Amino acid sequence: MKAFAKVRPEQGITKIDAEQPKPSSHEVLVKVRVTSVCGTDYHIYRWDEWAQAHIRPPRIIGHEFAGEIVEVSPDVTTHKVGDLVAAESHIACGRCYQCRTGNSHICERLRILGVDVDGSFADYVKIPEQNAWPIPSEVPIETASVLEPLGNAVHAAFAADIPGSHVSIFGCGPVGLSAVALTNVSGALSVTAIDINDYRLGLAKTMGATKVINSKTTDPVAEIHKDTNARGAGVVLEMSGNEVAIRNAFRAVRNGGTVILFGLPSTDVRLNLGDDLIFKEAHVRGIVGREIFKTWYILEDLLKSRKLDLRPLITHRMALNQIDDAMKLVGSGECGKIILSP
Amino acid sequence: MKAFAKVRPEQGITKIDAEQPKPSSHEVLVKVRVTSVCGTDYHIYRWDEWAQAHIRPPRIIGHEFAGEIVEVSPDVTTHKVGDLVAAESHIACGRCYQCRTGNSHICERLRILGVDVDGSFADYVKIPEQNAWPIPSEVPIETASVLEPLGNAVHAAFAADIPGSHVSIFGCGPVGLSAVALTNVSGALSVTAIDINDYRLGLAKTMGATKVINSKTTDPVAEIHKDTNARGAGVVLEMSGNEVAIRNAFRAVRNGGTVILFGLPSTDVRLNLGDDLIFKEAHVRGIVGREIFKTWYILEDLLKSRKLDLRPLITHRMALNQIDDAMKLVGSGECGKIILSP
Amino acid sequence: MKAFAKVRPEQGITKIDAEQPKPSSHEVLVKVRVTSVCGTDYHIYRWDEWAQAHIRPPRIIGHEFAGEIVEVSPDVTTHKVGDLVAAESHIACGRCYQCRTGNSHICERLRILGVDVDGSFADYVKIPEQNAWPIPSEVPIETASVLEPLGNAVHAAFAADIPGSHVSIFGCGPVGLSAVALTNVSGALSVTAIDINDYRLGLAKTMGATKVINSKTTDPVAEIHKDTNARGAGVVLEMSGNEVAIRNAFRAVRNGGTVILFGLPSTDVRLNLGDDLIFKEAHVRGIVGREIFKTWYILEDLLKSRKLDLRPLITHRMALNQIDDAMKLVGSGECGKIILSP
Amino acid sequence: MKAFAKVRPEQGITKIDAEQPKPSSHEVLVKVRVTSVCGTDYHIYRWDEWAQAHIRPPRIIGHEFAGEIVEVSPDVTTHKVGDLVAAESHIACGRCYQCRTGNSHICERLRILGVDVDGSFADYVKIPEQNAWPIPSEVPIETASVLEPLGNAVHAAFAADIPGSHVSIFGCGPVGLSAVALTNVSGALSVTAIDINDYRLGLAKTMGATKVINSKTTDPVAEIHKDTNARGAGVVLEMSGNEVAIRNAFRAVRNGGTVILFGLPSTDVRLNLGDDLIFKEAHVRGIVGREIFKTWYILEDLLKSRKLDLRPLITHRMALNQIDDAMKLVGSGECGKIILSP
Repeated sequence: MKAFAKVRPEQGITKIDAEQPKPSSHEVLVKVRVTSVCGTDYHIYRWDEWAQAHIRPPRIIGHEFAGEIVEVSPDVTTHKVGDLVAAESHIACGRCYQCRTGNSHICERLRILGVDVDGSFADYVKIPEQNAWPIPSEVPIETASVLEPLGNAVHAAFAADIPGSHVSIFGCGPVGLSAVALTNVSGALSVTAIDINDYRLGLAKTMGATKVINSKTTDPVAEIHKDTNARGAGVVLEMSGNEVAIRNAFRAVRNGGTVILFGLPSTDVRLNLGDDLIFKEAHVRGIVGREIFKTWYILEDLLKSRKLDLRPLITHRMALNQIDDAMKLVGSGECGKIILSP
Repeated sequence: MKAFAKVRPEQGITKIDAEQPKPSSHEVLVKVRVTSVCGTDYHIYRWDEWAQAHIRPPRIIGHEFAGEIVEVSPDVTTHKVGDLVAAESHIACGRCYQCRTGNSHICERLRILGVDVDGSFADYVKIPEQNAWPIPSEVPIETASVLEPLGNAVHAAFAADIPGSHVSIFGCGPVGLSAVALTNVSGALSVTAIDINDYRLGLAKTMGATKVINSKTTDPVAEIHKDTNARGAGVVLEMSGNEVAIRNAFRAVRNGGTVILFGLPSTDVRLNLGDDLIFKEAHVRGIVGREIFKTWYILEDLLKSRKLDLRPLITHRMALNQIDDAMKLVGSGECGKIILSP
Repeated sequence: MKAFAKVRPEQGITKIDAEQPKPSSHEVLVKVRVTSVCGTDYHIYRWDEWAQAHIRPPRIIGHEFAGEIVEVSPDVTTHKVGDLVAAESHIACGRCYQCRTGNSHICERLRILGVDVDGSFADYVKIPEQNAWPIPSEVPIETASVLEPLGNAVHAAFAADIPGSHVSIFGCGPVGLSAVALTNVSGALSVTAIDINDYRLGLAKTMGATKVINSKTTDPVAEIHKDTNARGAGVVLEMSGNEVAIRNAFRAVRNGGTVILFGLPSTDVRLNLGDDLIFKEAHVRGIVGREIFKTWYILEDLLKSRKLDLRPLITHRMALNQIDDAMKLVGSGECGKIILSP
Repeated sequence: MKAFAKVRPEQGITKIDAEQPKPSSHEVLVKVRVTSVCGTDYHIYRWDEWAQAHIRPPRIIGHEFAGEIVEVSPDVTTHKVGDLVAAESHIACGRCYQCRTGNSHICERLRILGVDVDGSFADYVKIPEQNAWPIPSEVPIETASVLEPLGNAVHAAFAADIPGSHVSIFGCGPVGLSAVALTNVSGALSVTAIDINDYRLGLAKTMGATKVINSKTTDPVAEIHKDTNARGAGVVLEMSGNEVAIRNAFRAVRNGGTVILFGLPSTDVRLNLGDDLIFKEAHVRGIVGREIFKTWYILEDLLKSRKLDLRPLITHRMALNQIDDAMKLVGSGECGKIILSP
């Protein structure tokens, strides 16, 4: 089958001819209908420090997708051939302390699709049956392919007290944009979106930001304090992974407020812990993935409720063969979510 | 001055000629511009069990109001004559464990305006300076008079996790209706409003309820389970004080869900604690008043954000002299909030 | 095999000759070494309202036990013949919302050993492999049989903020006594134990209660307020199921405090929700079972830490054949935990 | 009067002859009986980056003390001459968002005794009446002088879930040692203390540590993982302010665990946020000071309960005139808490 992989420890992605995967015990084989590009894929593409530490080539990458089940292992009981499904990309061991205490998304032996096992930039991908989530008939398959990043936004935003808070969101990639739309309908008193790219700030505005700040030209920390009676933001969602933004996130939060760290820095980050965290008594929480499956239940009902209009989020539709162009587009920042069709 | 008081331990309210109050240390005198009728006032009016246990006549009643400061004690530093203010009606002692640990709204020696001290159904009312909240210029004074009940809704609803939850609200009086509007813009997956009065259910629909149920004709518990895949509601706000509704609230909540008890029953209530609370591991929280002053900060910014349209909430405007009619209207349930002008 | 069952819908328990169970898929068969008597067993024995509503005879009862695995289904991978195990008695479906969101102990289709399926008052009992917990070599098997009720105490007590709180515990049965020992070593400022039985209050004193109150002769609410500067207890654990005690629990808690409801009342309970819960802004939480398996991880490490001395808890050791005497002893209240050997 | 001050922006401390302070409105004057040395004092003494950014000489330093009220402003109502008091050293404005929402310890205009206003290394010190806490008759005055650092430990430790957790404490200065004693009696499954000084590790052992690790010779992260079945510590209290220790704190915490940051680094700190915080979904909380006055209520009842033996904590008693020696002793690490008498 056709697939795109990191074949060597260097920048880039390579089209390969791979063997079609065979579902093992409790696995299903999915024919990929749509797959989309995540920031993690771009980390791997450009082969930064983080990617070098986490990827062992060769590896078919990609982990956001929706498709149709075309084969199931004989012991699979919860899905059948023909089902349309989206996928939870975090594969848990089921036996560790985290898995047995309701936190399998931070499993001690977690494997991530497209990172630790072969992923979805391919014609077919196999996943454990429990990682397949049926797509409700109300939800278009294109939207289903972004349940995964929207799930990041749900998990990240709902880990803080959004209702009654002034919210600042650093980074307007697809997860940041999803968080803008989500917090805007979740009782935030205001939603300030910060990025260095005017295209993405325009999308943030469309998706419900009360205010957007280009931090290349305006100091976001000063602006946020001005807008909140000098108090600072009650909740800051850091979704860029950029060191300057992370430092600003801590400076923008009010005393006693919450900083959610989601964006993945490619190197170590220097923080002024005394003034920006300890004296403020900031609450900080790292967020990764989605709560399995609490987040998915919310996602499904959220989409059915029609409270969110995610259409502006998907800005480009391309063929999977154009993945190199897609990666360059992600690098430019001039896009929201890019949907690829195999 | 003109005032309306409970003068005898029996049903009714009496117009009296009272002496204009004189502000003591750290108090301000407010000329009442608008005052509104609360369910507590109606408890006192009809002199039910709860009222008999809590009111010592004679007492000028009423506690929701907005007006203009016309006199201040010499030691007042935070307000001045001419200021327009709304009022926090809970007067805290400032010295008990609760007051010194940030919970003065549940002060051990709490006194409530219109219950323990003379209230606002009068030309003038005096309050401690710290209980006066400046009305922002963006907020019409009529709206300011309902900050107090809206504050109940904010405190009650935000004590639970609204974002990502299916919400059921029992009782569509003014606080219930405010909670409908509030949860609807705070990330609830659905908002189901329950009452026995179609007029109020109509208001609930206008204010954003996803669905309304008249529990005289439809079993709300069965309906809520049907709408949530047999799970039950994640959050139930009980705002009626009615025994049947309270029992239904516990039956409607899902396992591990949250029941907020706000409505004040007039007598003891029988509960099936085993099946409806213990086996479900329900979280229950009593809510009274508003968090001083966290709720007020939220209220102010919430109104400035224009996320809520409270206009449908105020259904009647009357002269204070018509208070007896107003009380009967409250008894009929054919009203939202009634605003009275002295 | 020998077993004791509720064979008819009436008071009592009957010795029967039952077929030895055969493990189905993912089940193990355990030879019972020790089994102990729980309050639930006594509800069933005396056939009260609760039992009538929840038990369908014939049913082998009993659910607290430890023993040796003597047979496993071929697909079992986590245990083997010869393993000594204790048992989680709550059997979860694995597919409902609660099970898939980390709360399988409140599974929507929960079955309880000795209530919904045959239990441990027998020579053998079969359980799902995931409900078997290996007994660490440091822990005597007799202690292992009380991991289940100790787990109730862990789950109930740790659901509240024990450190820095004055704690009151109503009901000194085995779970209440375990909670006394546990909160005493978990940072409680004081631990007050309340019961109507001096024998059990003596055990409570032995197990670490700061103070014991016999509520037949002394008003526990007045006493608790006197001991806490009129504030009330920060945390109340209700472990009796008795209506008077439950009402006192709500009267004893301080404003803003927490009441954990664990004891199962046999009928509806009347509560003064206004004064005792709403005006106090009490937090209430129903607790059932144990968190699967967070509680078990804690239990194991807690026993290894040797912080708790549970020896005084086990007051009687009898043969399973003496179960009728054991039940009568439970009814008298003149016992702690009774251990039975088949 | 005699006082010790930072008089110039450089290392050291100088004895000065200062004017005796005069209590202003709502202030009391305290004759210092005992005062003790805090890590913050040592930051100021050695004039590190943090001190340079926060202190404007001349400033009388010191903030931990107990003494007798010798003069009160006429408007003081809560204390009188002759009262023995300890002091909350954080002086809140009473008007900002934090103060009005129950978080005055993180007041937006917080002033700290001995940092922003003159402190207690002197014969007399004045404080706001509300910052004076009466010393219960059961508590020796020497112990009262350490209520402040013990209060740090209470606030820091009780901000996490200690019961049922494996706890690691980095830094065995007086606050770290207090936290060892406190968590040991608060339900920790184990308490591991880490420092680079064997003297302090000896004190940690005496005060209840299950295990001590000298991180100069043993890798604490490997050790903690070994002791917790490779899971990591559930709660890490970082009380050293040292960069290496802070990095280890994040590496030692288990997935989903909590890191409390209390120790104040003198410069920026580099963190591997991806692996050590985000992928772990760590909860991080900055802690400063004490909750006003929740912590003090706990402190008072904790000391009355006699659960803690703080005697080993106070290792040296010196005259205030020997303060330079005391500072050098702090620098050496060969001490617990040093008590000074003016």
